[in-house]
Amino acid sequence: MVNAGRLWKRLMELGEIGAQESGGITRFSFTAEERQAKELVARYMKEAGLFVREDAAGNLIGRREGSDADASVVLTGSHIDTVPSGGKFDGSLGVLAAIEALQTMQEQGISTTHPIEVVAFTDEEGSRFGFGMIGSRAVAGTLRSEHLKYTDVDGITIADAMKSANLSPDRLDEAARLPNQVKAYIELHIEQGIVLESIGHPVGLVTGIAGPLWQQFTIKGQAGHAGATPMNLRRDPLQSATELMGYIYAETRKFPNAVATIGKIQTLPGGVNVIPGQVQFSLDLRDVEEAERDKLEGRIRDYAGEVCRKYGTELTLELMQRVAPAPSSLEVKEAIAAAGKLAGLPDPLPELVSGAGHDGMQFNGLWPLGMIFVRSRNGISHHPEEWSSKEDCGLGAEVLHHALLLLAK
Amino acid sequence: MVNAGRLWKRLMELGEIGAQESGGITRFSFTAEERQAKELVARYMKEAGLFVREDAAGNLIGRREGSDADASVVLTGSHIDTVPSGGKFDGSLGVLAAIEALQTMQEQGISTTHPIEVVAFTDEEGSRFGFGMIGSRAVAGTLRSEHLKYTDVDGITIADAMKSANLSPDRLDEAARLPNQVKAYIELHIEQGIVLESIGHPVGLVTGIAGPLWQQFTIKGQAGHAGATPMNLRRDPLQSATELMGYIYAETRKFPNAVATIGKIQTLPGGVNVIPGQVQFSLDLRDVEEAERDKLEGRIRDYAGEVCRKYGTELTLELMQRVAPAPSSLEVKEAIAAAGKLAGLPDPLPELVSGAGHDGMQFNGLWPLGMIFVRSRNGISHHPEEWSSKEDCGLGAEVLHHALLLLAK
Repeated sequence: MVNAGRLWKRLMELGEIGAQESGGITRFSFTAEERQAKELVARYMKEAGLFVREDAAGNLIGRREGSDADASVVLTGSHIDTVPSGGKFDGSLGVLAAIEALQTMQEQGISTTHPIEVVAFTDEEGSRFGFGMIGSRAVAGTLRSEHLKYTDVDGITIADAMKSANLSPDRLDEAARLPNQVKAYIELHIEQGIVLESIGHPVGLVTGIAGPLWQQFTIKGQAGHAGATPMNLRRDPLQSATELMGYIYAETRKFPNAVATIGKIQTLPGGVNVIPGQVQFSLDLRDVEEAERDKLEGRIRDYAGEVCRKYGTELTLELMQRVAPAPSSLEVKEAIAAAGKLAGLPDPLPELVSGAGHDGMQFNGLWPLGMIFVRSRNGISHHPEEWSSKEDCGLGAEVLHHALLLLAK
Repeated sequence: MVNAGRLWKRLMELGEIGAQESGGITRFSFTAEERQAKELVARYMKEAGLFVREDAAGNLIGRREGSDADASVVLTGSHIDTVPSGGKFDGSLGVLAAIEALQTMQEQGISTTHPIEVVAFTDEEGSRFGFGMIGSRAVAGTLRSEHLKYTDVDGITIADAMKSANLSPDRLDEAARLPNQVKAYIELHIEQGIVLESIGHPVGLVTGIAGPLWQQFTIKGQAGHAGATPMNLRRDPLQSATELMGYIYAETRKFPNAVATIGKIQTLPGGVNVIPGQVQFSLDLRDVEEAERDKLEGRIRDYAGEVCRKYGTELTLELMQRVAPAPSSLEVKEAIAAAGKLAGLPDPLPELVSGAGHDGMQFNGLWPLGMIFVRSRNGISHHPEEWSSKEDCGLGAEVLHHALLLLAK
């Protein structure tokens, strides 16, 4: 068994770095807080007997050798940066659970054929530069020099921030792994949702990471005085938007794994007694199956056109981003399922989708990948109240330990 | 016939005062621009042979005596203040058309039994203090000293602004008319809507002024990550709001004269990839029949409760204002209908509702009241492009002239 007490102690200790007076922790990439966190995590890696290094992109890596020096590596890990006033578990748990899994192997004298590396990826959240998964992109070889021109609120570019942290933005290629160098990627993470809690399971098997599709809908009509235009003479764009949003909610429920979120909506001019002239709202559409997501997207687009024709309003659709979903691979899913059994959890592990993005998305199509979810309390994340119990964290690490042994055996 | 050319010349001349470089005119109450406008209008009143005075609330009054010195007065008029960057017609047309109607009586040597007074009411729009119809409230005797504590953007109270304009906020009672002192109130105004334009009529008979009911709906649910919560586990308040807004639009159309406007809507926290935790939207509900409006209000409230129970969201309803509708009285409607015939307009005049508020609302229940609407181009108002043709303005003034003769005869 992994040492759940040690894992918990490290989680709480790491959770002190960047702690805010208001509650929660803030650790942005390439800052003093992140450096301090890396130094602490490097110490844990050394305690686990790992060989520690930092790559050109700032990824902190702890390596445990396999018996075959030439064998491809099994990658695991997560991130230790946070959103503003975030929690102690998002990212950190995946890094510390991986260290715990390897330290347990070390203590039990277990060897594997394949080497295993724990990676704390640089800036997964994107909180500082509005551009995330920097470290995992570098490992995938997809981080481009133009990406390094993104700036933070002070106008500092990613490249300059890297340099001031003694990293080498001009040698990023050294951080990239070739397709044949990696056997698989497996990550443990808190669920950040309420599925496991609602079914009463501590640990789940992630079938894939849903890719977000972000669109902005702009509907233009005719503004006017709230009193002076009868209902049948109005071209009120919010009425078109209401009908369209109702369709989006209803239609999405017809797809088993799709989720649709309208997070922002705004009317112009926005007076209580003024019929809006324009409405804008955002749509975040996700599914673990790209074809399903695109089918739903098409239906929504068609319906939007119909509604606006019906009301004489004018539709503009703007694509903000379209990220491909990353389904988990059979090999990693099977390893996690078997590991759940070995960890003594009810068989089979419940399966669920990751709606949130994770570093593994960057490896989609490059390497087999999969994820383990640990139950979140009330589904709260990106918030000081983010929480998973000591027991659940220990069980998750136990599953990761066995899954790594199976993948690296 | 009234002199449509003279009326138009005055409209254009008055429309120069407060003209903005960006187009449109801005004349707020108790400012130098308003004073200049009052001086010009006083000159027109004198040209029409009227006795001119200003009451304690700043209402500018031009009186034409009747043959019976003790008879109750027929009041007519409108306002000469504007919204920011407003048009030349809103308010001004009603004041200048009334002066034109009386000047025509003067020139034709017609006398009436009842005296007639044209009033340019102080601050109808409420643009400066967020509190309008100041002058008409004073005339109705309903302007309270606590109302005078409202402030403008510079923190100046209505009372102080009145004093700096040499008015007497402590003698407002002198501006009030007793119920038995007024025979009727009749106002001409631009429609500010597209009803007359859509049916091809220059002038309409207003059956009543719809009273606005303003409510703020706040729906609370559970915020969350857009990816991490399946649709069936969400308590998304925007989904509740969408269903409720759809009901509001559909249900309102079942009432012949009701209009519902949702002018403002906002989600919190408002991120593209965050399920909203709260939605707030405003509702402006109007009907010329108070019972109808209240019936619709009740149905909406009931449905809101149902929807929020269904989705497990939490509803808070806040009343922002509830103004009683002011139906036109039979006496004034009959005078206007007969005047339309005398003016040579197609019989009967089309009837329509005033969705916008007007000074006459303040006289509801005190005196018989009614309004004449003049066709607006494209329904545009509160905007530099506000427009009514010279011919339509003249026809409206002609109807007002005859209606005043009938009411004051």
